[in-house]
Amino acid sequence: MFEAAELGSKVDKATYAARVPALVTRLLEAQRALRAAQVPVVIIVSGVEGAGKSEVVNRLTEWLDPRGVQVNAFWDETDEERDRPRAWRFWRRLPPRGQVAVFFGSWYTHPIVARAFDQITDAELERALTRIEALERMLTVDGALVVKLWFHMSKKAQAARLKDPRKGRKGEWKLSPLTKKFARRYATFARLSDAAIRATDTQACPWHIIEAEDRRHRDLTAGETVLAVIERRLASPPAAPAVAAAPPAPAPGPTVLDRVDLPACTLTEEEYDEQLLAEQRRLFELTWEARRRRVSSVIVFEGWDAAGKGGAIRRVAAALDARLLRVIPIAAPTDEERAHHYLWRFWRHLPMGGYLTIFDRSWYGRVLVERVEGFARPDEWERAYREITGFEEQLVDHGMVVTKLWLHLSKEEQLARFEERQRTAWKQHKITDEDWRNREKWDAYAQAIHDMVARTSTAAAPWTVVAAEDKRWARVQVVRTVADRLEAAL
Amino acid sequence: MFEAAELGSKVDKATYAARVPALVTRLLEAQRALRAAQVPVVIIVSGVEGAGKSEVVNRLTEWLDPRGVQVNAFWDETDEERDRPRAWRFWRRLPPRGQVAVFFGSWYTHPIVARAFDQITDAELERALTRIEALERMLTVDGALVVKLWFHMSKKAQAARLKDPRKGRKGEWKLSPLTKKFARRYATFARLSDAAIRATDTQACPWHIIEAEDRRHRDLTAGETVLAVIERRLASPPAAPAVAAAPPAPAPGPTVLDRVDLPACTLTEEEYDEQLLAEQRRLFELTWEARRRRVSSVIVFEGWDAAGKGGAIRRVAAALDARLLRVIPIAAPTDEERAHHYLWRFWRHLPMGGYLTIFDRSWYGRVLVERVEGFARPDEWERAYREITGFEEQLVDHGMVVTKLWLHLSKEEQLARFEERQRTAWKQHKITDEDWRNREKWDAYAQAIHDMVARTSTAAAPWTVVAAEDKRWARVQVVRTVADRLEAAL
Repeated sequence: MFEAAELGSKVDKATYAARVPALVTRLLEAQRALRAAQVPVVIIVSGVEGAGKSEVVNRLTEWLDPRGVQVNAFWDETDEERDRPRAWRFWRRLPPRGQVAVFFGSWYTHPIVARAFDQITDAELERALTRIEALERMLTVDGALVVKLWFHMSKKAQAARLKDPRKGRKGEWKLSPLTKKFARRYATFARLSDAAIRATDTQACPWHIIEAEDRRHRDLTAGETVLAVIERRLASPPAAPAVAAAPPAPAPGPTVLDRVDLPACTLTEEEYDEQLLAEQRRLFELTWEARRRRVSSVIVFEGWDAAGKGGAIRRVAAALDARLLRVIPIAAPTDEERAHHYLWRFWRHLPMGGYLTIFDRSWYGRVLVERVEGFARPDEWERAYREITGFEEQLVDHGMVVTKLWLHLSKEEQLARFEERQRTAWKQHKITDEDWRNREKWDAYAQAIHDMVARTSTAAAPWTVVAAEDKRWARVQVVRTVADRLEAAL
Repeated sequence: MFEAAELGSKVDKATYAARVPALVTRLLEAQRALRAAQVPVVIIVSGVEGAGKSEVVNRLTEWLDPRGVQVNAFWDETDEERDRPRAWRFWRRLPPRGQVAVFFGSWYTHPIVARAFDQITDAELERALTRIEALERMLTVDGALVVKLWFHMSKKAQAARLKDPRKGRKGEWKLSPLTKKFARRYATFARLSDAAIRATDTQACPWHIIEAEDRRHRDLTAGETVLAVIERRLASPPAAPAVAAAPPAPAPGPTVLDRVDLPACTLTEEEYDEQLLAEQRRLFELTWEARRRRVSSVIVFEGWDAAGKGGAIRRVAAALDARLLRVIPIAAPTDEERAHHYLWRFWRHLPMGGYLTIFDRSWYGRVLVERVEGFARPDEWERAYREITGFEEQLVDHGMVVTKLWLHLSKEEQLARFEERQRTAWKQHKITDEDWRNREKWDAYAQAIHDMVARTSTAAAPWTVVAAEDKRWARVQVVRTVADRLEAAL
């Protein structure tokens, strides 16, 4: 593949000088149009050592309006980054809609380098690439533009460049010992890069291989490539998918919820007091052990309105040292959150090693309320199942414990609780018209819950449906489940 | 002072059981009211070792709705925190309006501990306390409620507690070797804490000293204190200050801007090309040296409309490796930003060690546009001068280089540029009705600029008024100033 980028292409000074002004004008225009169209752009700059990637980045930012561009150099990881799944550092740098982010170094860097130095296996590399492809597809389908540039040089040209890096140019990047170490493995990197590029060269996010030997050719081609990709995107915005007919409504049949024997799940007050205290003590000890080992927990609370989420969360919180826990209530997104992919607002709250985060409602809103209420299009919520399991898989792979709880009660018990809330002065704020409206859609929600459990309950991150007809039973089971999950991981 | 908290106060079991339910009900009610009133609350939990601060934190979060409370334990600093001024880690954890943050450990911890172990001098301690007082005043006057709890125990009681920390209670915090090391310095800590408390016991943010020997007394008093402070705040919100008459408009006289000899500041094209390249080269080298030494720069760009900020920023950006620079354009705040003190949005963008951040417009908006347009009340913008110099002082003390540029041009030249923008198709987006309206208020702005320079140009963070009548001159001077400031710091 790289042979096509060893042609000795050159751009002479006059041609360069003649083409740059028009290029810059059009780039600035394109940047304004992107802002107006609220398209977020990620420009990935990668390639062989010595190809002058930093020069290219400088050139691009010089040509664009720097006020709409963030350059992100993924040099050393900070400890806050090391403590989260590897993708976290990229998620936190994803541009909001309408902005451009240049990624110098990217999600490709680690897998390729780690494989080259035999820190990971072929299978692990392949897995990493699959995940990258999924991430890029997810961002793209959400409206982002991901422009991937690969700067190539032949081994000979690289050797010459590294030998005399300062030749003729101010500002050449000082070569680090690492660069030379990398250069010695030219063939290995070439082979791995070739494989990585092929594996991730998709229709939505193709690679652009740019010959880097001649600097003017390199920079001009980079600029023109970026411009072409942006202009194409502006000219033909992704068609809103033909409104996919929602999947045929399944015949009303039993759901996973029907399997729960609600009447059987009750506790007496004595049983409750004793069991709750025992489970809380157990959880308390486990969380300190988890802190010692830097194992973190992500706990998802979902459930019917009035199923007792708040009370259950308080029983978990009471068991823990408050310093270890963060409760993130998920309500309407902030405007910064709305300017990103819907998973961004959850990525940003992932705990550091040893801590617990409770999401009071979560990313599952996508396949529950957004599905049932029509806030998400069918194609959006349908693909969300895979996006979500992919997200959770990354947490688990990083060593996080993912616990997902659905608090279930009967329609009759919900009605009783609604009515009690309306009767009780200090509970009235807990019942709104929306609750009543949701209740009318009970069957649609039951189906959505069934599908959610069926499609996202994985071995690594299973769903636990908690019988919440009896609050005592539910609270004990919630604390016990959180403790069980943590214990199994320690 | 602490004698008043060595009275042996106790609460018996029955009293405790009788008072807690009402307390919890009222706390939950108060929390809801705080949310409705959009008051952010910081509860600082501090005190002697062994007083059971973590138990108190747990109790408070148990009594409050955990969904509106964030507990922040300021344990080890992360490297992202160490790389910023010490207050950064607190700023990033300040609650948005309507939320409660419990600070376990706070801005008081470091100064007192560092002084106890002779890492800082008395003068440095005093300075830190002055800064804390200023911070608390600033947050309070902005509408926040800062509740400061100090848990006290006599030396004897502490010794007994530390001897047998697990006595009779589950979940007691495991004592670290550090705790014992601290306890050995009981007298030193008592003396320093006493001084710190006195120095920061202000009317707006008083300290509440709570006797911690008896656990029920301690927890109940803590809860009731928090409740009392909140209820008082809700009952009498800070009166919008009597609309302070704006200070008498100074007789129109010469401003700092009049001293700039605009006609004299021009460069020929040859001079420009030569000097710009020389300064850019110099700046390039300096920024890499700064990265090596982890010295970061904060660069503020302010100036008249059409003074050429954008072009000047591009000339600075062109000099740097793009990976070292971040340009933050300051436009309308996001809703997350609006939910915090106005300086929060700037704190969040401070660079890590070795990087540069350009603020394209800045916190000076408070004393410029917000003053002139009346977006800020006179008392708000008047106190902003001190808030701003206090903010910048912290950056400088941390080793950051703060460079502040005002791009100045004559009213006539501005008019010429406005008209040119209207004539030139691709520049038309750069001129808006607002620009024309601002222009009508030229004199008011000139006065605001004069006051700004007079009151915020400090030795550590001076203003540079750049003659921008000639764009070439301005661009060279901007790059040169940034380089000069950096050079002086290296």
